[in-house]
Amino acid sequence: MPDIYQELVKLSESDMYPLHMPGHKRNLESTPLKGAFRCDITEIDDFDNLHDESGIILEAEKRANDFYGADETYFLVNGSTSGVLSAVSAAVPDGGMVLAARGSHKSFYNAAYLRHLDIEYLPVKMIDKYGIFDGYNAGEVKTALDDLKRKPDAVFITSPTYEGKCSDVEGIAKICHEKKIPLIVDAAHGAHFGLGEGIPESAVKAGADIVIHSLHKTLPSMTQTALIHVQGDIVSKALLKRFLRIYQSSSPSYVLMASIDLCIKELLENKDLYVRKLLEFRKRLDQGTKDCKKVRIIGTNELEDPSKVLVFVDSGEMTGHELYDILREEYGLQLEMAGERYALAIITGWDKDEGIDRFLQAICEIDKRLKKSRPLESDGAVKSLFPKREMPLYKAWDMETEAVELDKAIGRISGDFVNLYPPGIPMIVPGEVIDEHLLDQIRGCIEQGLNIQGISDAKTTENKGIIGKREIICVKQK
Amino acid sequence: MPDIYQELVKLSESDMYPLHMPGHKRNLESTPLKGAFRCDITEIDDFDNLHDESGIILEAEKRANDFYGADETYFLVNGSTSGVLSAVSAAVPDGGMVLAARGSHKSFYNAAYLRHLDIEYLPVKMIDKYGIFDGYNAGEVKTALDDLKRKPDAVFITSPTYEGKCSDVEGIAKICHEKKIPLIVDAAHGAHFGLGEGIPESAVKAGADIVIHSLHKTLPSMTQTALIHVQGDIVSKALLKRFLRIYQSSSPSYVLMASIDLCIKELLENKDLYVRKLLEFRKRLDQGTKDCKKVRIIGTNELEDPSKVLVFVDSGEMTGHELYDILREEYGLQLEMAGERYALAIITGWDKDEGIDRFLQAICEIDKRLKKSRPLESDGAVKSLFPKREMPLYKAWDMETEAVELDKAIGRISGDFVNLYPPGIPMIVPGEVIDEHLLDQIRGCIEQGLNIQGISDAKTTENKGIIGKREIICVKQK
Repeated sequence: MPDIYQELVKLSESDMYPLHMPGHKRNLESTPLKGAFRCDITEIDDFDNLHDESGIILEAEKRANDFYGADETYFLVNGSTSGVLSAVSAAVPDGGMVLAARGSHKSFYNAAYLRHLDIEYLPVKMIDKYGIFDGYNAGEVKTALDDLKRKPDAVFITSPTYEGKCSDVEGIAKICHEKKIPLIVDAAHGAHFGLGEGIPESAVKAGADIVIHSLHKTLPSMTQTALIHVQGDIVSKALLKRFLRIYQSSSPSYVLMASIDLCIKELLENKDLYVRKLLEFRKRLDQGTKDCKKVRIIGTNELEDPSKVLVFVDSGEMTGHELYDILREEYGLQLEMAGERYALAIITGWDKDEGIDRFLQAICEIDKRLKKSRPLESDGAVKSLFPKREMPLYKAWDMETEAVELDKAIGRISGDFVNLYPPGIPMIVPGEVIDEHLLDQIRGCIEQGLNIQGISDAKTTENKGIIGKREIICVKQK
Repeated sequence: MPDIYQELVKLSESDMYPLHMPGHKRNLESTPLKGAFRCDITEIDDFDNLHDESGIILEAEKRANDFYGADETYFLVNGSTSGVLSAVSAAVPDGGMVLAARGSHKSFYNAAYLRHLDIEYLPVKMIDKYGIFDGYNAGEVKTALDDLKRKPDAVFITSPTYEGKCSDVEGIAKICHEKKIPLIVDAAHGAHFGLGEGIPESAVKAGADIVIHSLHKTLPSMTQTALIHVQGDIVSKALLKRFLRIYQSSSPSYVLMASIDLCIKELLENKDLYVRKLLEFRKRLDQGTKDCKKVRIIGTNELEDPSKVLVFVDSGEMTGHELYDILREEYGLQLEMAGERYALAIITGWDKDEGIDRFLQAICEIDKRLKKSRPLESDGAVKSLFPKREMPLYKAWDMETEAVELDKAIGRISGDFVNLYPPGIPMIVPGEVIDEHLLDQIRGCIEQGLNIQGISDAKTTENKGIIGKREIICVKQK
């Protein structure tokens, strides 16, 4: 069976002349991006249409669907973002209500804003010692559902989290289905789940109604590519398709689609090799650092995803960002992100021995440099407090706002998001009340040089850079 | 000044090892798409963030902005679709009203649905003899605005149209600005406008408040890439940026962004060569077919965009689709689309002499085959009638619907879109009343084998393929 890439190459080698878009006409003289331009076409005869598939794109989606085993699988060329927007829009009517984890990706909040949703939160649950979001078990979701005054239109969770923590998707799906509530799982970081022994099971197999999988995060596909899977009869598949058409370009990239199809073919052919290599790399790192006393890799008994390597500085002697900088500047290792007390790496089956070995050696050497081996007394980084909500997101974000200096903002209602990047989980959502704890967190992030969005320098230039003079957007007071 | 592509290549040639997304790790063994994978990264140090630009992406956007001359220019990696969604959402409040041309792209209707907008239409204006949408002059927009009972929140027009017809953007912008109404111009097909003499002026220079430019349609950039420009103080730039963040992936493709930047650099360096070649190709086609009696290329005096070559069969002896098929099957020329009486080609400065000459020869040979030279008595294809509206789109699309056989659907309210692809302008919008004229159009499209979406085969399989048994989605009657 020819894949999309093969068909595109065949076309480029044929005598068919393009009197259509794109404007570059596959004229390779016009670009250094020759490989991509060669495969870059528009919806011409025999090349199907992503938004009304019946030919090679449908066949490719079926291959992906066979691999993951949902009822339907659709290609996403606007990332998991478009999958989350579409899933929430299809499962929850405009003005409806959703029960969600507070640690959801900003695309979830954007969907809630667009669709005027009331959000009820699952209890905020964190692994305090690392300062990261925890997963949920079925009992916690059941209690939250029982405590709600009305039945939500959907439950939305993230599993695995950015740092690799899983929820009991199977148990939670059962609880939801008893009440005929659809479960949406943002599994953007879990497209490799279910690929073999040693890797957690897939949210599709665990029975979630809609699952969103980024393909580029842990599998060999181009950035911005993803899949959305739907199963069961609680969510309307027609409505899901409607929103996929709305939130995605009507000129989808054939290069991105070919990349998705090549990724699935690679998995079909080499899945076992990939799993073996990933687990072997992981084992090498785990075993090679088991004698390190001050810099620890958190085990898969705590963070289940073997692809996520969270390197934690027990003593607090070094911040996560310092660790990240040393790895980058002294060892030429670019990690995924830095947290307050850790740095996070992603490894996959497409890594190279040399890179893994360099990483291993770096951790061991840094461990030797550090002096303190005793964990911090507090044994924790971020406390699991989250601001209280004063009004719905969709109202607050559309109200008149003003910039307020951080230290004068306590008690004010937030008028915009403040996000820490990555992973793009809001520290505060419009409508929530700014408190001292949030300001501590924000100050901490600024001091550590983390990438924080939604905080601006005060307009008076002489104060630029002074933390106390940074500003946050608040709903205007009357 | 290094462009994004050069920075990506430099990174790929450096010793920096990727312990981050994407999962393919730029390991070129894992894909045949090597050139693209080499440049495919995530938001790591020094590579900026599309949604909060301050480094190389901001610099690249500034280069694009300098070239087109608006106040701000943003890169789009989810096509003009995301630009139209963002423009309408930023300019018109939820529940607001917009004055628009009926021949708008479906992304406009999708924005109106998401934001619960009332749409008032400009008078439907078609060039009947070709069956395509006409442009608007300032007087027509002024009259429409004067006739409205309340001031719309925005005016939305498409210029150039898919077939290359322009509106008087400058005159319309003046009329709008007298009333402090923002003008949004979907110029997806006009990114090459303003590049030189012989090409119409740019909608940015003509003063529109927001202009959306697809880069891939007529310029050398990858499919799904576009720009959005904003100027003046009627539209909030902060609100536009909010919606760009909502409607676009939080994992934007660096390959697409590099392609946008390369396209702008190509224009900066070779704009004049591009314009000269485009106009030379166009002149060769126009002059070489000037003696053809039955197959005509419509001149740029009628359809102003020289990139759009509309090949029209005067006599009606051959349908547009037959012409399209002959060009494809006998000459190896893939055109952009077929209409009822014409086939449409896109040419650019990146075409090759051989392709243009083959096209020219094909038209001349097909002209010789045809017998009738006299135009049809009716001198027209599609009549400029459009269905009347019974309820707003955002209401009708969310109502309960049922599939109704085409010939039983007259008088019913449409519950879904019916689109002809390309160009993706709806033949009917949810909430409009299905009439005999629409059914004639739909039947005509089906008979000609055009790519029509929103019409399904009747569920009884024995009727499959019989036009009379095709079904259309209607709002359910009580």
